[in-house]
Order: sequence, then C-alpha cells, then structure tokens
Amino acid sequence: MEPQEAIIKKILEIPTASLSDALDDVGIRGFMDHSIKLRTCDVKIVGPAVTVKDRIANRKVTPIKALEVIENAPLGAVLVRSIEDVSGDEAANIALFGGVMAQASKVKGLSGAVLDGGLRDLAECKTLAFPVFSRSVTPSTSVGRTEVVGVNVPIVCGGVLVKPGDIIVGDLDGVVVIPKEKLREVVERALKIEETEKKMTAELTKSTSILSVIKKYSRL
Amino acid sequence: MEPQEAIIKKILEIPTASLSDALDDVGIRGFMDHSIKLRTCDVKIVGPAVTVKDRIANRKVTPIKALEVIENAPLGAVLVRSIEDVSGDEAANIALFGGVMAQASKVKGLSGAVLDGGLRDLAECKTLAFPVFSRSVTPSTSVGRTEVVGVNVPIVCGGVLVKPGDIIVGDLDGVVVIPKEKLREVVERALKIEETEKKMTAELTKSTSILSVIKKYSRL
Amino acid sequence: MEPQEAIIKKILEIPTASLSDALDDVGIRGFMDHSIKLRTCDVKIVGPAVTVKDRIANRKVTPIKALEVIENAPLGAVLVRSIEDVSGDEAANIALFGGVMAQASKVKGLSGAVLDGGLRDLAECKTLAFPVFSRSVTPSTSVGRTEVVGVNVPIVCGGVLVKPGDIIVGDLDGVVVIPKEKLREVVERALKIEETEKKMTAELTKSTSILSVIKKYSRL
Repeated sequence: MEPQEAIIKKILEIPTASLSDALDDVGIRGFMDHSIKLRTCDVKIVGPAVTVKDRIANRKVTPIKALEVIENAPLGAVLVRSIEDVSGDEAANIALFGGVMAQASKVKGLSGAVLDGGLRDLAECKTLAFPVFSRSVTPSTSVGRTEVVGVNVPIVCGGVLVKPGDIIVGDLDGVVVIPKEKLREVVERALKIEETEKKMTAELTKSTSILSVIKKYSRL
Repeated sequence: MEPQEAIIKKILEIPTASLSDALDDVGIRGFMDHSIKLRTCDVKIVGPAVTVKDRIANRKVTPIKALEVIENAPLGAVLVRSIEDVSGDEAANIALFGGVMAQASKVKGLSGAVLDGGLRDLAECKTLAFPVFSRSVTPSTSVGRTEVVGVNVPIVCGGVLVKPGDIIVGDLDGVVVIPKEKLREVVERALKIEETEKKMTAELTKSTSILSVIKKYSRL
Repeated sequence: MEPQEAIIKKILEIPTASLSDALDDVGIRGFMDHSIKLRTCDVKIVGPAVTVKDRIANRKVTPIKALEVIENAPLGAVLVRSIEDVSGDEAANIALFGGVMAQASKVKGLSGAVLDGGLRDLAECKTLAFPVFSRSVTPSTSVGRTEVVGVNVPIVCGGVLVKPGDIIVGDLDGVVVIPKEKLREVVERALKIEETEKKMTAELTKSTSILSVIKKYSRL
C-alpha cells in the first residue's frame, strides 16, 4: 500500500475544486465556508490535521494548550482551530492565530493553519510566508475572549467536521477536508477527474465548438 | 443614430461611479451588491448581458444550457448568472463559473462574467486573464446543487434586474447595469458628470479652498 | 509632559494588535469590526479623529459639511465617517468617501479616512496613495441616500465609540481607537507588550522548545 507521503505528493498536483467534486461523488461535503480564505501568501497546503477547540470565556488564559499542539505536531501537519459556540461573524472578530504561533509553527515544520476565526499580525505572517487560511484579519486577541477546551479532538471548522489526521488541502479556491478513512478513494476519483479535465481543456483550445467537447466528456 | 459599439467605446472611459450617479438621476438603482467584486484580473468590462438563471436542485445535470449561452453569445457579451431562490450568503458557497467556462468564454470572445454566487479555478482564470466578478471564490461546483432553468431571460443579480441586452459595466468599484432602453440617456448624463468632475479635480489640485471649488460645481 | 506629536511617533512603531491588547488591559474594546479594512495602499495611519455623522435620507444634499470637516481638520487628522441608523451590511452599499474627498484630504494633509460604509473611486484613491479603511468598495454615492447630521461629535464606527480627538490607528490588521484621555496609559502598556514580544521572538528563533519560551514570558 502506498505510504501517506506519496498520496500527499499526488494531492499537491490536484486542485481543491477536483477534490471537492470527488468528495461530492462519495456523498461528502468537503469544502469549508467560502469566507475562510488564504491571507498570507500564495502557497498551497496539504497535510494531516491537528486540531484545537476553543469556547467563549472571559478569563485570561495563555493558550499554552494550542502551543503544545504545535510543539507536538508531526512534520507537515496543518493546525485547524475553531470556536465551538459562536457564529462565523462573531468568530471573525477574534484572532485565533498570530505572529508568535506562526513563528512556532514554521520552526516546527507545520504546513499551514486554518482558522474559523481571525488572524492577526498579518504583516509578520506575510514576512514569514507561512500559509494561513482564516475568516478575517483583526487586531484583537483570543486571550480573554476564548479558551482552549480540547486538543486533537474532532471539531467543526467552516461548516465541515475535521478529525485529527484528516487531510486538509487549501489553495486559492479555498479549503477542503478529506476524511482519512476515504483518502485513497477520494484521491483516485480526483485524479480521474483531473485526467478528463486535461483532455477536455486541450481540445477546447483547439475546437470552436465548446458543446461538442463538453458533451464528449460530459464534465464541467 | 450612434451604433451601440460607439456607445460602448465611450463607456470604457466612464467609471461605474459616474454611471451609477447618472442612473440615480433617472430614478434607477443600477449598482449591484458590493460583495460582487472583480476576482481575476484588473480589467474593466462593458458589454450586453446574456443571462443564465439557476435554481436549487439536487440532481446532477451538466450545465450544457449555460455553455450554449456562451457558444451563441454575441462577441463582447457579458455572461450574467444567478440562482433565483437563495440568499447571497448561500449562493457564495456554490461556484457558478470555473476554468472550463472561462476558457470557452475567452475562445468565444465574451468580455467577462458576473456571478451572484461563487467562482472556482481562480488560479486558471487569473492565468487566462478573463475578468470575472463574483460574490466569492469556492472550490464547490454547482453540479448537483443547482440547475439551469432559463437562458436569456430577465434575472436578478446582486439585487439588480438584468434583462438580456442590458449593458453591464464592471470595474474596480463594482458592477453597474444600464437598462438597454435608457442607454443613450444614461451615457449622456454620465459624460456630463465626468466633464464637471474633471474641471473640479483640476481646480482642486490648484486651490487651497476645497469648499469654494465644490460650491462652484456643487457636485461630489 | 510629552507632546502629542511625540506619542504619535511612538505609535507608528506599535502594531494595532499590541494597542488592542493594551486597551483590553484597561477594560476597553478598541478594535473596529474586522470588515473595516485598508483598501487603497499599504500605509499605516495614526492621527486624531475628526468625525462626520450621517443618517439615512432621500433628498439630495451635497455633503458640504463633510468637506468643511476636511477643510478645517488639523494636519495629520483622520476622517471618521459613519451612518447612525443602518446595519453594517446596508452601509456597505453606500459610499461615504470617493475621489474628490480623497484629493481634498490629501491637499489638506489628513493622514487617512475610516468609513463604516463604502468607498468609491478606488482606482483614483490608489493613484493618490491616500489610505482609506472601509467596509466595502461600491460605485454608489451617499448623495440622495444619507445626509450629514453632525460634525465633530461622538459617533459609533465599526462598533466602537469615536470622540473627536481620539487617536485612530490603522494598519494591515485593522483599526483601533484609543480614547484621548487614556492615550498615555495605553501607549505605555503597548510599549511594554512590544518589548516582551521582541525578546520572545528573538528566543523563539533560537530555541526548539516553544513552550519554555512562552512560559517564560507567558504572553502571546
């Protein structure tokens, strides 16, 4: 059986759009809410999720637990953090990640971070060229607003269930979650979709009849 | 009478802001919701609308009808597509346009696309430098989520009624719709607004009294 | 006592994130809603607020009062404008600032503008390189949609109370308001936060144990 590293390498060549379609094919909504966008640099991410679950709180707790997750994450992991008991709109006014976490994540070799909430220290994260997907950018800290209530537990991020070890893929189109138990199946389907698309694109540039090409491949 | 091509050439020199003001003058709200923004490249678009109307559906239908609209569109047309029965927030999680449609649209000589919904394959659309205005960018397809229920019929896009042949104008400020039956009147008014603005701007850079210049032209 | 100019110079070196934390420390929410973002150029702003308060109206009034505020503003001031009786979503479809105001503001030496509403003439504002923070970009004018009902009065902008003379700070992370009566206290606290952060960052790049560094400084 193929090792996970080989599969991750393949996914680097597959757009989130085709992965989302392959997930549709197996009956799973895999794409996160469109508001969760790449904010820091134009770098595609692929890696297994490590997760941090917050809830609203008004005492000041340094998020040591979130840093422990980064410290102990496998090389290439993607940090996924969300607040369990707020709407996306409210979460957008609370930064769940910033310069110190970005530096720590980079030192530890994480692939990126995905936040159902805000990002702060955008200038610093851009300088580090560490890929962060978030709902917003805001100067406000999570300290005094939320506290960590679980690490490496299942969470909901951008409307999608994320279990530790699920494969997170993010590019310019957004973020897709592939459940780990479906990884091989989804990637195989996505590769077939990509193959058809490449043939279709090649014919489209030559042909003047779009419809005949589309009908031949009947895929959009 | 001036041919439409000559009028379109003039509009290329008029910002959407002045066109929106001219539409205000004749009692029409012409600007689409601010969320519908240029996503792919910094190119102004002007052209007659061809329209595609979707509604929510959960069977998988290849949007052949949307491609037929592109295939049969007049040179320079703007594809306008929206879903009739969802909120803007929901539409933002459904891509109504992507790489294949962008390629087809480019080959067929369309000026651009305006979507009350998402765009996918952003990287590809950027490479093609095809101008697309949309509410969002998302990897999810419309296939299995919506189906085309009308082509070249009146639709509502970004809160504005768009009839086939209405002139769509989009720039960095957003999208404006000029009803075809008001085209001459609106463009004439907009040109006068532009003329005043240019004089005012010239004086403003020379004068230290903003107010006297503004009062002279009483226009903002 | 330090003159205000000296304090403003110091603030230019302090990110909004640390100012927001310092405001948290003294019990004040200082950050505006995340939707109010820098739209025109990547320039940090710091300056005392001059304010314009609008309300919804449907008669056409040239906003002479808003221009008087610009004409009479002290050098380096920041124009803050909001509409008192609408939601942020509705305000986003009304431009409260555009090319003429940007030119006037630049000639008069203002530092920038912050709008709880839309911006228009984005291309022109980019050319002028005048920093504008707004909820949106839209071609629609405020003329005929709102009228000015107060100048240099307290207003609420992005969910935060702004009194004339309060210090407005905006950067890539967003906008923070420092009440004038708290200025010295907040800046002192923010400078201490910055000092700790710099030490921590320096150690983080050397150390492999993030946690030990964080625990030492216990600050994120």
